[in-house]
Amino acid sequence: MTQLTQARAGCITPEMATVAQAEGIEAELIRQGVAEGVVVIPANTNHQGLIPCGIGRGLRTKVNANLGTSADCCSVEGELAKLQTALLSGADAVMDLSTGGDLPGIRRAIIAHCPLPLGSVPIYEAAVAAMANGGTVVGMTEDDIFRAIERHCRDGVDFITVHCGVTRRVLALLKAQGRVAGIVSRGGAFLAAWMLHHEKENPLYEHFDRLLTICQAQDVTLSLGDGLRPGALADATDRAQIEELVTLGELAMRAQDAGVQVMVEGPGHVPLGEIEANIKLQKKLCNGAPFYVLGPLVTDIAAGRDHITSAIGGAVAAAAGADFLCYVTPAEHLSLPDPADVREGVMAARLAAHAADIAKGVGGAAARDLAMSTARKRLDWEEQQRLSLDPECFAQTRAKHQTESEACSMCGKYCAMKMVESGLGITAEYC
Amino acid sequence: MTQLTQARAGCITPEMATVAQAEGIEAELIRQGVAEGVVVIPANTNHQGLIPCGIGRGLRTKVNANLGTSADCCSVEGELAKLQTALLSGADAVMDLSTGGDLPGIRRAIIAHCPLPLGSVPIYEAAVAAMANGGTVVGMTEDDIFRAIERHCRDGVDFITVHCGVTRRVLALLKAQGRVAGIVSRGGAFLAAWMLHHEKENPLYEHFDRLLTICQAQDVTLSLGDGLRPGALADATDRAQIEELVTLGELAMRAQDAGVQVMVEGPGHVPLGEIEANIKLQKKLCNGAPFYVLGPLVTDIAAGRDHITSAIGGAVAAAAGADFLCYVTPAEHLSLPDPADVREGVMAARLAAHAADIAKGVGGAAARDLAMSTARKRLDWEEQQRLSLDPECFAQTRAKHQTESEACSMCGKYCAMKMVESGLGITAEYC
Repeated sequence: MTQLTQARAGCITPEMATVAQAEGIEAELIRQGVAEGVVVIPANTNHQGLIPCGIGRGLRTKVNANLGTSADCCSVEGELAKLQTALLSGADAVMDLSTGGDLPGIRRAIIAHCPLPLGSVPIYEAAVAAMANGGTVVGMTEDDIFRAIERHCRDGVDFITVHCGVTRRVLALLKAQGRVAGIVSRGGAFLAAWMLHHEKENPLYEHFDRLLTICQAQDVTLSLGDGLRPGALADATDRAQIEELVTLGELAMRAQDAGVQVMVEGPGHVPLGEIEANIKLQKKLCNGAPFYVLGPLVTDIAAGRDHITSAIGGAVAAAAGADFLCYVTPAEHLSLPDPADVREGVMAARLAAHAADIAKGVGGAAARDLAMSTARKRLDWEEQQRLSLDPECFAQTRAKHQTESEACSMCGKYCAMKMVESGLGITAEYC
Repeated sequence: MTQLTQARAGCITPEMATVAQAEGIEAELIRQGVAEGVVVIPANTNHQGLIPCGIGRGLRTKVNANLGTSADCCSVEGELAKLQTALLSGADAVMDLSTGGDLPGIRRAIIAHCPLPLGSVPIYEAAVAAMANGGTVVGMTEDDIFRAIERHCRDGVDFITVHCGVTRRVLALLKAQGRVAGIVSRGGAFLAAWMLHHEKENPLYEHFDRLLTICQAQDVTLSLGDGLRPGALADATDRAQIEELVTLGELAMRAQDAGVQVMVEGPGHVPLGEIEANIKLQKKLCNGAPFYVLGPLVTDIAAGRDHITSAIGGAVAAAAGADFLCYVTPAEHLSLPDPADVREGVMAARLAAHAADIAKGVGGAAARDLAMSTARKRLDWEEQQRLSLDPECFAQTRAKHQTESEACSMCGKYCAMKMVESGLGITAEYC
């Protein structure tokens, strides 16, 4: 029994109850959302210590932090340090995208230390193993791919990214139209290379039912990956991307019919003016399945500050209906992130998610801003710090130029808030 | 003769020609924009060494960096250091908002070192002088205010913020409705205190023609300030704010009729979902006069990272038609910014402006992203650095984990861009 099948049977699971409490929403509404497929609760039955989290319509926008080694930079300790930073920074989920070192060992260490829903991309393990065995990416077999997926599910991964929509038709469309940046999804590239070399259909598409059977066993949530996500503004919303999305919508329905929870992944690099259309399209084509976006990044030129690029796109996307934001760190496009990058990435994405939640009217988001503004008007610095997105950063920044003044060092005694009282009286010392 | 009167007379000034070249637009179109009042070129005839810059419809979105001392923190050297940082970071304009130290001396030092359009808020000087002379803010006279304005104009300030729309009617509306954060504009608070104490109308409103006469002499551009800008999301788009905007629209028309260039200032703290309506409203009420926004900030809770809050709001505002973004630094709400804050603030605002310019289709913005993505696909790191928003930050971030690999340390040999060629062939080493 998965969360989805139980929801359809009218059963409120402990996981649904936990999510309801965290969101301040009736458990019955969570059950209905899961039953309709507009809410997922990624919760692998083998993930010990998981605190379940809901993602989808009517819920607070969630933030994911990507972890993971690369071939050049791989230590378990390093990943656990980044995990700890992600937890302390307030991430709602993490993904292990490791491609270097002892992949199963790293994964299991992360799962053991992670109370948040954990995602992974199992095909990385199949591809890395194929290359490590003196071979090439295209040397992996269909069984290698599915066995990697089975291992991840048995280990307790809560959601897996599978690029099922990279079909031969999508690749033909891509070839016919051309692209500036081609394929930028690693999983998408592995599959495309394999398909082109073997002249075969994507096994994750062709044998989608096999995938569903694997996911049913531990109630693993599918995250239908966007192997064709645009990696340049010029490539956004093109035929290859939209054809893949059409296929993902069809597969999402098949997954739900099989009782498998599913969300859909989306772009990528998208001009600001195209974001809303992308979100509306996904929601329509995928029957409201939760939408998990990477960015979107609203310019290609800001490497080094792409957490900001992504906060702009993420806020606009979430306000338009995206449910789950994958963070982007200041290291994106340049290097593997370190813990400081992880912190900046999570904070920027949480800021974007919160701004969108105010626009969407969910999660009592606006109430926190009201409390903050009331404290600010009172010049109550302790309460402002407590209510702030990042109390540590708040305190550090304030300390930089702190003075004796009751107000801050920007305006000092000329503080407008201090000068004019709430009732529009003038504070005595100014008149 | 001001830029506006010359434009109406059919004359293309050297300033218009310079702006046309910088924007890659025909000079005649710049002249038409200035004549219609939808473009301003703040260029005080006494500002030696100014490189004129255009702000308004069809032009690249511009970014302003606020400088200025406070009572607790005032040195000319400190301000010149921040000015230098603003220039090197790519700001398009700066404002001197000093309220501490030798105000005329600081202003003149900044003007002497500033090739960008410089703005100021003359009423600060009148209010600070009134308080310094053992008195109070409300002790300043109407003449004190106008004389301060005259001094700023004679010194070479290119645009002045004047809170002409803080009328008795606006204050009555504010009092009747109440507000969480009240008045947060310093200039607005000085005037409100004065008006309430003396039970008089705002002299900048009542004697608006005197103001216009002063501006005509050196062609100083009016920036009609929003003394009622919301300082909390809860206060956004309220009757006080909109009543002030209605008045600013009326005054903008009067300024233009008198041959005085004018732009209008706007919010402030605004929920993401209300930004577009605010911009459309200003454009309509003010006959398309250039709109200069502070932020907007899309949440109240992110002090310490409000450059990001503001980048989100600024990008959405500029995409909807705002022409000029006032930066917000990470120090906002907490302390006076230092040079590092200035740099982060300018970069975040430039990023937002660029993302909006792509959406608006101005300034060849998208072409730069296309060139960047082409270089990225080629793994041409030198060209990427050259094309990036902040080449220095790009290089530093890349160096953090740089490896021998041709790709970056995030994906290393599993780089999707490297694996799948542009023509959708697979790079030899992967098959």
